Amino acid sequence: MTVKKTLYFGAGWFSEKQNQAYATAMKALKANPSVDIENSYVPLAHQYKGIRVDEHPEYLHDREWATATYQGDLVGIRSSDFVLGIYLPDEEDAGLCMEMGYAQGQGKYIMLVIPDEDYGKPINLMSWGVADNVIKMSELASYNFNQPGFNFYDGAVY
Amino acid sequence: MTVKKTLYFGAGWFSEKQNQAYATAMKALKANPSVDIENSYVPLAHQYKGIRVDEHPEYLHDREWATATYQGDLVGIRSSDFVLGIYLPDEEDAGLCMEMGYAQGQGKYIMLVIPDEDYGKPINLMSWGVADNVIKMSELASYNFNQPGFNFYDGAVY
Amino acid sequence: MTVKKTLYFGAGWFSEKQNQAYATAMKALKANPSVDIENSYVPLAHQYKGIRVDEHPEYLHDREWATATYQGDLVGIRSSDFVLGIYLPDEEDAGLCMEMGYAQGQGKYIMLVIPDEDYGKPINLMSWGVADNVIKMSELASYNFNQPGFNFYDGAVY
Amino acid sequence: MTVKKTLYFGAGWFSEKQNQAYATAMKALKANPSVDIENSYVPLAHQYKGIRVDEHPEYLHDREWATATYQGDLVGIRSSDFVLGIYLPDEEDAGLCMEMGYAQGQGKYIMLVIPDEDYGKPINLMSWGVADNVIKMSELASYNFNQPGFNFYDGAVY
Amino acid sequence: MTVKKTLYFGAGWFSEKQNQAYATAMKALKANPSVDIENSYVPLAHQYKGIRVDEHPEYLHDREWATATYQGDLVGIRSSDFVLGIYLPDEEDAGLCMEMGYAQGQGKYIMLVIPDEDYGKPINLMSWGVADNVIKMSELASYNFNQPGFNFYDGAVY
Amino acid sequence: MTVKKTLYFGAGWFSEKQNQAYATAMKALKANPSVDIENSYVPLAHQYKGIRVDEHPEYLHDREWATATYQGDLVGIRSSDFVLGIYLPDEEDAGLCMEMGYAQGQGKYIMLVIPDEDYGKPINLMSWGVADNVIKMSELASYNFNQPGFNFYDGAVY
Repeated sequence: MTVKKTLYFGAGWFSEKQNQAYATAMKALKANPSVDIENSYVPLAHQYKGIRVDEHPEYLHDREWATATYQGDLVGIRSSDFVLGIYLPDEEDAGLCMEMGYAQGQGKYIMLVIPDEDYGKPINLMSWGVADNVIKMSELASYNFNQPGFNFYDGAVY
Repeated sequence: MTVKKTLYFGAGWFSEKQNQAYATAMKALKANPSVDIENSYVPLAHQYKGIRVDEHPEYLHDREWATATYQGDLVGIRSSDFVLGIYLPDEEDAGLCMEMGYAQGQGKYIMLVIPDEDYGKPINLMSWGVADNVIKMSELASYNFNQPGFNFYDGAVY
Repeated sequence: MTVKKTLYFGAGWFSEKQNQAYATAMKALKANPSVDIENSYVPLAHQYKGIRVDEHPEYLHDREWATATYQGDLVGIRSSDFVLGIYLPDEEDAGLCMEMGYAQGQGKYIMLVIPDEDYGKPINLMSWGVADNVIKMSELASYNFNQPGFNFYDGAVY
Repeated sequence: MTVKKTLYFGAGWFSEKQNQAYATAMKALKANPSVDIENSYVPLAHQYKGIRVDEHPEYLHDREWATATYQGDLVGIRSSDFVLGIYLPDEEDAGLCMEMGYAQGQGKYIMLVIPDEDYGKPINLMSWGVADNVIKMSELASYNFNQPGFNFYDGAVY
Repeated sequence: MTVKKTLYFGAGWFSEKQNQAYATAMKALKANPSVDIENSYVPLAHQYKGIRVDEHPEYLHDREWATATYQGDLVGIRSSDFVLGIYLPDEEDAGLCMEMGYAQGQGKYIMLVIPDEDYGKPINLMSWGVADNVIKMSELASYNFNQPGFNFYDGAVY
Repeated sequence: MTVKKTLYFGAGWFSEKQNQAYATAMKALKANPSVDIENSYVPLAHQYKGIRVDEHPEYLHDREWATATYQGDLVGIRSSDFVLGIYLPDEEDAGLCMEMGYAQGQGKYIMLVIPDEDYGKPINLMSWGVADNVIKMSELASYNFNQPGFNFYDGAVY
């Protein structure tokens, strides 16, 4: 029996660089034998009623849409085995940081992934502290999430 | 007897605009009769050994400094009555967002304060959801923190 | 200095008997020197926009109203020192029971108060277990909430 | 590999209607390919020492029995993947509501199931809020619990 | 107004040395102006029905006594502002260590106090990690618990 | 498909008796068909950088080593399905007790295992209370961890 873990995929989709890291990470996860990507939670696939607010700005003030999408993300964090954050030191994402804080309160293992070329750059102290481990993008496809461990970020903090 | 509440002061000090909001908020809090500012937790006053990493970049990689400063901030959140976040929609702060997520897990009341001129601008969906209330800077001096309540942000989400 | 504690007032207002117990308990709390009733949270006073759904049935399906009122009650539980439940063994209240479960997760002290004439009657096993203490209505005015203690319900369970 | 989830089966057995819903739900769960019913927790099967207090009223005041049965149910909630509540709007169950509040504090996914003929009827505001999703009984056999999602109850609140 | 904090007094009473540290600490706390000792929780004063199992060994197997005394201590931890542990490196107390772990889960500030002559001796790694601060007995009377802070134990770990 | 659970292996390695119980328990776990020992967390195998402080006393004061090893153990507790404590009534382990308290806050099932010849001896009240179940060493190889249940320790408390 091959055991697989589910994850909450924390990643932004608001800039060119974010979209590139998003795609690279997703490809690595599909290749990772310890990851059950089919049953993992990808927020972009769970916008309430399938509506993306960046494409439908008329929902910017819709409290029902916002409540349901927000609660859906919390469900995703709570019902997944761990939280993965695609982290760009030069474009730290407010949403991902809140999600990591929430995940800490839920006792989830929190893994940050930083593109190889950015690994080592300073990251926010609170992200540094809440992460249980921080690896390079090139390590993502082979990390064994069935045996998660703690390690310090091998980089700077600000 | 006048009851007063203590708070964790979540606010950045990395840009001109952040510093201005920081000072304005601090002044309002000192004027607020429901706030015990003397016993509140201001992170900038609790950098480990009094060392600010922005002034002493040689501590950027010091894991003892980072661990102690991070743990100090968590102590501040846990031992304060509520968390106040000075929130700039155009400069969302990664550290503050993680602190709010953590505070949610600790059951703290979370209040965001937005400068009047920025109030209504879009904020990140996760910040929107984790906040129990969002007020304008001009309301901060008179808000009664002994009777905290819930309300939606009267602005947009992205 | 006289220390006083704030509470979340868990009590129904849907039947004659509930309304009577509600009023009796409120009177006792105002007389209790260890209670700060002014800064306590009374749900009926925090219906979103001041709208009571029992008087305005057109809000029965309003998700914004429901979300805000629900979140307001959670804020009330989290930001109060303890939770008081006015408990009628013959009319167990679904809402109060959920609130006690939530309060347990928030680490709050949970005190049930049962009218003297009903004290001893069987109550639901889960209410029995989640309560830290169960007293008679006639004891409410003098209980010292600055020194809360544990005790078993002196009655039956079903 | 077919992944299956375990659940805590929250349902009453105190009235004719409850017993009927209990049996219907159990049958649907056995048919659901995403549910591991064998390793799920059914409270009725875990009464301390196999004693049901409704059949042995001499245990109504037995604190050892009550403590062990209560703690057993908490173990069931904590060690199951999610909590399922069989919910009858006309007969809201105090025990189930407390269990849902507790489950929320434990970060569990909470699914309510309402008999088709009762779906839409008003339910208590706190049950409405704590539920992550509310489906009809006829949907239970095919719901994929490996991909749980959030949704509002498509009915009224009181 | 002088603000005072309540505490849970974690300390053993099973050896000569423990009893001495117990008495010294209690005296310091009464002298500390930031401590409300009257409303603090002292476990020895809350043994169920006033029965101490060391004096009444016939209660060694009494599950009702054990459950109530245990639950009372948990109430004490949850309803106090912080947890104080009188810690003897040569006689580490199993009960105190469990209480600190529980207190961590409840978000309490955890302060260890070590007799001056023992300060610096190795302590268990888990106690080292869960403590927010570790001071000497001679510092206890003047520590300001209204402004709790984080610090590492200035001693060894094993 | 045979479902297996992962565990956090809480056990001391500081005395002859501890080492013996350690080895006996490990053998039983490998024989237990409901346990996935390969993906379970054994603290001794996760000392930071592979350094054991009992063999390298120069690390007794190394805060980086201590922080990382401590955080690693917390990760082990959080990411395992349940916590197993090898418990010797005559040599209660401070570290294990703190781990059980922490595990309670994380909602983990907590099972204590006591060598058959020591089963029944008095254990600390707090360990008694935090344990969900206490079995004999000889029962460990066959206990079904896919169907965990609550039971009282069949022994004394002090």
